Amino acid sequence: MPYGIIVTMPTIIAVDIGGTHMRAAAYAQNKQSPVKYKKIATLASKPGGFERLLSVIEDVWPKTDSVTAIGLGSPGPLDPHSGYLLAPPNNPEWHNFPLTPKVEEHFGVKAFLDNDANLAGLGEYRYGAGKGHHHVLYITVSTGIGGGVITDDRLLQGYHGLAAELGHSIVDPDGPPCSCGFNGHLEAFASGPAIAKYVLGELEKGTKSVLKRDANMTARDVAEAAHQGDELAIQAYQRAGTYLGIGVASFLHVFDPSIVIFGGGVSQVGQLLFDPFNISLRQRVFHPRYLEELVITQAQLGDDAGLLGARALAEMKSGL
Amino acid sequence: MPYGIIVTMPTIIAVDIGGTHMRAAAYAQNKQSPVKYKKIATLASKPGGFERLLSVIEDVWPKTDSVTAIGLGSPGPLDPHSGYLLAPPNNPEWHNFPLTPKVEEHFGVKAFLDNDANLAGLGEYRYGAGKGHHHVLYITVSTGIGGGVITDDRLLQGYHGLAAELGHSIVDPDGPPCSCGFNGHLEAFASGPAIAKYVLGELEKGTKSVLKRDANMTARDVAEAAHQGDELAIQAYQRAGTYLGIGVASFLHVFDPSIVIFGGGVSQVGQLLFDPFNISLRQRVFHPRYLEELVITQAQLGDDAGLLGARALAEMKSGL
Repeated sequence: MPYGIIVTMPTIIAVDIGGTHMRAAAYAQNKQSPVKYKKIATLASKPGGFERLLSVIEDVWPKTDSVTAIGLGSPGPLDPHSGYLLAPPNNPEWHNFPLTPKVEEHFGVKAFLDNDANLAGLGEYRYGAGKGHHHVLYITVSTGIGGGVITDDRLLQGYHGLAAELGHSIVDPDGPPCSCGFNGHLEAFASGPAIAKYVLGELEKGTKSVLKRDANMTARDVAEAAHQGDELAIQAYQRAGTYLGIGVASFLHVFDPSIVIFGGGVSQVGQLLFDPFNISLRQRVFHPRYLEELVITQAQLGDDAGLLGARALAEMKSGL
Repeated sequence: MPYGIIVTMPTIIAVDIGGTHMRAAAYAQNKQSPVKYKKIATLASKPGGFERLLSVIEDVWPKTDSVTAIGLGSPGPLDPHSGYLLAPPNNPEWHNFPLTPKVEEHFGVKAFLDNDANLAGLGEYRYGAGKGHHHVLYITVSTGIGGGVITDDRLLQGYHGLAAELGHSIVDPDGPPCSCGFNGHLEAFASGPAIAKYVLGELEKGTKSVLKRDANMTARDVAEAAHQGDELAIQAYQRAGTYLGIGVASFLHVFDPSIVIFGGGVSQVGQLLFDPFNISLRQRVFHPRYLEELVITQAQLGDDAGLLGARALAEMKSGL
């Protein structure tokens, strides 16, 4: 390399605006680890959120290298096409907020936005468990159930940018109410709160269990009871796994992916959920060909999924 | 144009292998009507099907113009990636049959294959009701329920080529058996045979109706009775429309299209099906944004959908 010439590397900046933390990273091409990384508190309900976002981006901005694009991830609902946040949870300041246009204006660089579940799916597809696959179904099972779908190497976004809301698929029209207020969604059967709610309902009916009626009960409490052999707790996970299998069977018929990746806290519980899931899925898939070479696996990126997804979005939209 | 020079136009050949007829057409670029068209009997159960296919293609082959590609449509299951027919109905000769490779070998031209519902959706997207839309959900409601999905201007095919089997989405795990043998699919509630079967079941229970117990009853018979004011018949369509609304609500949450196009004989019944469908859909869509600017409409291409879809497939795969 000729002496005296500064070689600049094209850099992508990724930001993951989470409920608790806002994290930013600068990535050089072809390296999975960031060149710079910074994490600050989101403080969603406190004013000055946009200024905090600008400062965390500035903190990771490279001194010499040029920034190609900025990728931004946030909880939805949001519009990835216009870059507007619509109504992020607990943050009145950011209702109908033109996030991408304002970031572009400030930094003079193209910016791209999508929701956390879509980006976690995109991150796993490009940098995690889904590497090498072209048709990826990512499902996060946590407080809610979210999805990220890649078909033919492209992120499914939809006309309004509201596609892949897998948790709001109707799996039983007469089922219990979902967090969104509508009945019978997959999320109303298999999310963490749905598992706890089912146990509370059964306790109210007088079903015996080591678990006590406690409005703060979590899916983790239920899992611990199940590991002690508590029948109600085991049954709660069986029910969740069974409905998860029903939902994923429909998703296979509709998307026909080569890999299903599970993320989110509830999905880390293991066999308790995935034994009944696997039985249910195999009972419900209507043609054996969907299961040929199908990989069902856990997410690999953990807390980095959203950040690497925001990076992947910025890369792919910039043609990298 | 200089005198004495023959100008050749790139031509696409499309073939629609239906249950009753095999139809072929040659299309010049930018013209919706075919330059040549031929229809022959499929005679699926009689030997010589491949020879009949070759002859119908030869009949529309242009004398001077060059053929860019051949698009082929057939009932599934089939593999659009390898071009193999897997198990077309009533045709033992074509089980595991390498249709596309054999057509390519014979004519020395690239050929592309997909199933009839996917191609009807693609045809409507490119030449029919979906023109100008980038996110299209096509649903055919007929003897079965099939789907064709275009997301971001690309046909959803999936890893095994088995995506968009919308009729086999599970809308109620405890629902009646589907034609495929599995329970609670959309097709088991809202296809023509499902409507007739529901009426027959109710008649068996003693429900009063102008309809008589007749194993050959069709959805058309039920529609006629409904138009005469028969309550059971009306209820049968209400049930079908309600479940169709539940299914489409989930499809909106998952695909977020800008247009939903209905094809197939049962969908031509009008308000009888679509009044309850619309009520059900609006009751079930969990965020009003999905319905903003959403067009819900009938297919425009009729019998030509498959042919124009096969044409569109060949054009798009050739980069036209």
